[in-house]
Amino acid sequence: MAKLKIAVLGATGMVGQRFIAGLQNHPYFELGVLAASERSVGKRYAEAAKWYIEGDIPKDVASMRVELIDKKVIRDYGIDLAFSAIPAEIAREVEGSFAQEIPVFSNTKTYRMDDDVPLMIPEINPGHFDLIKAQQKKRGWKGYIITNPNCTTVGFALPLKPIYDALGVDWVTLTSMQALSGAGYEGVPSMAIVDNIIPYIGGEEEKCELEPLKILGSISAGKVKNADFKVIASCNRVAVLDGHMISTVVGTKKDFTVEDVKEIFRKFKGEPQKMKLPTAPDPAIIVRDEDDRPQPRRDRNAGGGMAVTVGRIMKKQERVLRFTSLSHNTIRGAAGASILNAELAYKKKLL
Amino acid sequence: MAKLKIAVLGATGMVGQRFIAGLQNHPYFELGVLAASERSVGKRYAEAAKWYIEGDIPKDVASMRVELIDKKVIRDYGIDLAFSAIPAEIAREVEGSFAQEIPVFSNTKTYRMDDDVPLMIPEINPGHFDLIKAQQKKRGWKGYIITNPNCTTVGFALPLKPIYDALGVDWVTLTSMQALSGAGYEGVPSMAIVDNIIPYIGGEEEKCELEPLKILGSISAGKVKNADFKVIASCNRVAVLDGHMISTVVGTKKDFTVEDVKEIFRKFKGEPQKMKLPTAPDPAIIVRDEDDRPQPRRDRNAGGGMAVTVGRIMKKQERVLRFTSLSHNTIRGAAGASILNAELAYKKKLL
Amino acid sequence: MAKLKIAVLGATGMVGQRFIAGLQNHPYFELGVLAASERSVGKRYAEAAKWYIEGDIPKDVASMRVELIDKKVIRDYGIDLAFSAIPAEIAREVEGSFAQEIPVFSNTKTYRMDDDVPLMIPEINPGHFDLIKAQQKKRGWKGYIITNPNCTTVGFALPLKPIYDALGVDWVTLTSMQALSGAGYEGVPSMAIVDNIIPYIGGEEEKCELEPLKILGSISAGKVKNADFKVIASCNRVAVLDGHMISTVVGTKKDFTVEDVKEIFRKFKGEPQKMKLPTAPDPAIIVRDEDDRPQPRRDRNAGGGMAVTVGRIMKKQERVLRFTSLSHNTIRGAAGASILNAELAYKKKLL
Amino acid sequence: MAKLKIAVLGATGMVGQRFIAGLQNHPYFELGVLAASERSVGKRYAEAAKWYIEGDIPKDVASMRVELIDKKVIRDYGIDLAFSAIPAEIAREVEGSFAQEIPVFSNTKTYRMDDDVPLMIPEINPGHFDLIKAQQKKRGWKGYIITNPNCTTVGFALPLKPIYDALGVDWVTLTSMQALSGAGYEGVPSMAIVDNIIPYIGGEEEKCELEPLKILGSISAGKVKNADFKVIASCNRVAVLDGHMISTVVGTKKDFTVEDVKEIFRKFKGEPQKMKLPTAPDPAIIVRDEDDRPQPRRDRNAGGGMAVTVGRIMKKQERVLRFTSLSHNTIRGAAGASILNAELAYKKKLL
Repeated sequence: MAKLKIAVLGATGMVGQRFIAGLQNHPYFELGVLAASERSVGKRYAEAAKWYIEGDIPKDVASMRVELIDKKVIRDYGIDLAFSAIPAEIAREVEGSFAQEIPVFSNTKTYRMDDDVPLMIPEINPGHFDLIKAQQKKRGWKGYIITNPNCTTVGFALPLKPIYDALGVDWVTLTSMQALSGAGYEGVPSMAIVDNIIPYIGGEEEKCELEPLKILGSISAGKVKNADFKVIASCNRVAVLDGHMISTVVGTKKDFTVEDVKEIFRKFKGEPQKMKLPTAPDPAIIVRDEDDRPQPRRDRNAGGGMAVTVGRIMKKQERVLRFTSLSHNTIRGAAGASILNAELAYKKKLL
Repeated sequence: MAKLKIAVLGATGMVGQRFIAGLQNHPYFELGVLAASERSVGKRYAEAAKWYIEGDIPKDVASMRVELIDKKVIRDYGIDLAFSAIPAEIAREVEGSFAQEIPVFSNTKTYRMDDDVPLMIPEINPGHFDLIKAQQKKRGWKGYIITNPNCTTVGFALPLKPIYDALGVDWVTLTSMQALSGAGYEGVPSMAIVDNIIPYIGGEEEKCELEPLKILGSISAGKVKNADFKVIASCNRVAVLDGHMISTVVGTKKDFTVEDVKEIFRKFKGEPQKMKLPTAPDPAIIVRDEDDRPQPRRDRNAGGGMAVTVGRIMKKQERVLRFTSLSHNTIRGAAGASILNAELAYKKKLL
Repeated sequence: MAKLKIAVLGATGMVGQRFIAGLQNHPYFELGVLAASERSVGKRYAEAAKWYIEGDIPKDVASMRVELIDKKVIRDYGIDLAFSAIPAEIAREVEGSFAQEIPVFSNTKTYRMDDDVPLMIPEINPGHFDLIKAQQKKRGWKGYIITNPNCTTVGFALPLKPIYDALGVDWVTLTSMQALSGAGYEGVPSMAIVDNIIPYIGGEEEKCELEPLKILGSISAGKVKNADFKVIASCNRVAVLDGHMISTVVGTKKDFTVEDVKEIFRKFKGEPQKMKLPTAPDPAIIVRDEDDRPQPRRDRNAGGGMAVTVGRIMKKQERVLRFTSLSHNTIRGAAGASILNAELAYKKKLL
Repeated sequence: MAKLKIAVLGATGMVGQRFIAGLQNHPYFELGVLAASERSVGKRYAEAAKWYIEGDIPKDVASMRVELIDKKVIRDYGIDLAFSAIPAEIAREVEGSFAQEIPVFSNTKTYRMDDDVPLMIPEINPGHFDLIKAQQKKRGWKGYIITNPNCTTVGFALPLKPIYDALGVDWVTLTSMQALSGAGYEGVPSMAIVDNIIPYIGGEEEKCELEPLKILGSISAGKVKNADFKVIASCNRVAVLDGHMISTVVGTKKDFTVEDVKEIFRKFKGEPQKMKLPTAPDPAIIVRDEDDRPQPRRDRNAGGGMAVTVGRIMKKQERVLRFTSLSHNTIRGAAGASILNAELAYKKKLL
């Protein structure tokens, strides 16, 4: 069966690169076109992009011509669906124009909180695909937009899901220690971060506080009804290349033992695991019993960068759980998240 | 008036070095003897210590002979009081033997939680000096032991104090991002921390959860009655040389505005500030309004390393306050804390 | 006697900041005006600059209004001389326009290799001030331009001088390991340098190979006759905040012992030391005997950031000397170098 | 055909770990026994070793029992050959006792400079296997010892080889910027290296200056006659996890163009490449044309960590070549080097 042809929108940035890496030899999808801003148009990809991933640019990709991000590429290249990592400022218009014709799986924040747009972690809320019909109807699109959450959200929302189901959640406080790649290649000057920490990442805390409520929400009448608990987030930048670490404290509704929680994490399987999707990590949540894990450098590539590693699981008082989680911010937290969403859509015949 | 003569116990380590640096040209105290373990005895200090503080070892200190940590030095050198940064394993015996004769200001954890031993941050609980009499009586000592808290505790307990007084405290969750120097010069291998974070520091979370309750406690019948709230701490090691950063969320009893809290912090003065003690920072708490402060490299030396810098002050919901604080872990969090305790004792004629 | 009024051109950058810091409480000079590009004009300095130096911006500087870099400020503010750290692209025109009226001490490369412009390290070639007359005559200026070398050049050229005088120099190979601040605050992305080295700094090797020959050159007929040896330079960027380290091998004309060389370094005094200029380090060259020195973090601030620290002095074969040197790249290698040049000019009544 | 059974001596250290990783699924060899010091004996490998390589310990290795380093394991486990990464202090006795019975491929320095012991880089001097007979005869061993060079030596000696053959070599100066893993997991405290460089690595410069002369030497009368040129080395430690970078300047006997040199490097093939040995990189020398390569993080894993990447190739004057090279210090510079030596021995029927 022929593979579906993909456009990568915003192909030269760090998430764009992860899309390209993640789509190498993919069983469902193949690269159709690499699209970027005017600055890069007409160049070979190897000239246009500052490749940051280990190893060299895949050879056939290196020589691909970069095209302008314009829905015209859909016809020109016979594109079936798009992955998007474009700047938020242009996403409303650009992603919308693509969605008029084809499905768009977007890593950009712009549409995330729209009523009729799924904000998906496929292990958590695959049912939110049900919004697609309402979305298409309301907007008059033949395609649709599926978004994935912020790179930090995914790292604690995924382990929160089975806790939420098994124990209930009253409140969450979390502190993130986030990697440099989350800000883009030029995002954090070395002068700012060597021997230092920056206790601020624009917009990040707000996303961490809102997004999980939508993701864990239920659908009724074509809309998401948010989950009903409170998140308080403190986000920090540290001198780590890849891998966001998050220290989380959760007030649960039911009491538990540490062993209960480890069991809950270990048993967790979402649809991607059950369906054995190509890039689904199994297990999705890796529990480490060592005192000093997870660590970014040791654990970020677990499950091909798609697993969330959880450690430091402790009961701090009755109905208060604490754990530390780690996930790869440009794979599970970005490109890999979109790809896994698309794989699930594929299997569900939504492509 | 003659200065009091000081013994530094554990003089070659990183906190010992900070004692030496902090006592240079001190108006009340002068170095009498540098004491260390057998390995160093008989060497000149410059040979025995791996000096880590910026600049070279003060010249007259470099040539001082290192003596064994033994209370015999009290007579031999005419010592009036001791500062201690010795290993916890030997502290009960060694600090006790010195306290039989002279006051000991200790940075070591061993005596901290003893009923009759003050655990002091002089801006918070100077009244705990009242325990000295009970301590001397119970133990038959002519001297006494005053301890200062763990390097992390001081960074959030100090800003917590005026909040506790003004608003009341129900619960606290905090996540620390701690500097390398806190583990000692050889404590954290570079292979462990470059491009990485370690989510574990032995014993640290327990200290952060217990110590503030004693420090904020009240005295009755010669004992400390602990403050009555709960602290949940997650402690992490990051690739920063000096300066512990802590992200704290506090449930208060009364509601507040952010401006209230800034005002509370800005107005705060403890006895060290009122008495203008030589190393007292003024203000003790520095409030930064910028989004991206405090930062370890920028703020650790504020107030000579004795101030706590607070930023990211936000109201997260009714009666929920969040802030980030930063303090120098080997100055305010260790040697400087002991010295400030001793300065207060001096002014109160307890030496 | 009234202090001379200074314009700092390019005041918001990292070298500009070092000019400001270096001129605080200076006995000869006082800040008259801070000039920068249009982006900053009209702002208070504290808004316009991202201050990177330890401690806060000096209070009176923080509130100064930033003016446009235009020679009109000379009249408006009664400026006596200018320090320049402006981009090379605009330096020819801008520095030239200021030099029509007042002396300009420039850290920018543009005029460095001009025949009639001194490229000065005041310990090495104070006699090059003699070019001023030829320069003024040729260009019709009332003022003049004095340049200082590249931040790396100074770190090996200064120790090379007494070797050159005492032993002669046939050839030099050097490898630099250069600090991040040399590239400007945003110059090196953290993604590029964490757990990494960059073996390339644009234009740096050429400067290191050419500049010392002019600096060590002699003047005849109003021109510099370059010194006659060959330099081969390899320049690398490493994850250090401040302080360029250079490993140098020198082929000398006369043979020597290691003790000879240490003695040559230790005895070295230039005019700044003899005249006790305000910011002259004394000694200018610090010799360290320890195996593991110099180190950037330990030695960069020696002599107020104006000394060059030399270690690893070894004789590798007959007439082949090897040493490692370390100097602060934005102080001795930039702003401090210009200020020391101006101090010497002041004492020689050239201002 | 049955695989040969391997003992790894010093299995818990960083090079030991690389031996284990490098022998996973090896076509000629299989792990027979893991041997370490008394401290580890009797533990499962997963308990005894602090695994530092990305990913977890291979499962079957994790549960292997660690044995004492004693030649008794040869019988007990039916061992055919040993790889050694034991401390230099015990190597003479221990490696010698194993060599009485079986071949030993050693990464330890102890036997390297012995007259009758090959110091091999199999691309350079495979002929030095001819020393084995003399060695066995002289020492009365049934086995023998083959050593590989210091981790830094290999990074410049390998590219030097084709230059030596094609152009001749008169002298070499080099400056290394070496990774942390070269010192062992606990070798470099983080306090020593964050925001810093250490210009000293004990014994390293001497090895870099001597070893290449033996490696490039010729054999006559059962002894190695050293190559006849002079190397001057300056070795530095930088904050990089893996990958030694070396900036080298070579005085050649014949003149050349940069293109000549690139061609010489690109064409280079040693016996391992010609014989397509399992871990032989092909090409052995990777030439990068970009200005800013090689870089440790980007290039250390090239060729499975076995290639040497060369860039910054420039002609600095007549018969003076400069280049920068990068190789993985615990793979090509240690365990991988020994394994490649053993593969060649295997193919040459010396096992």
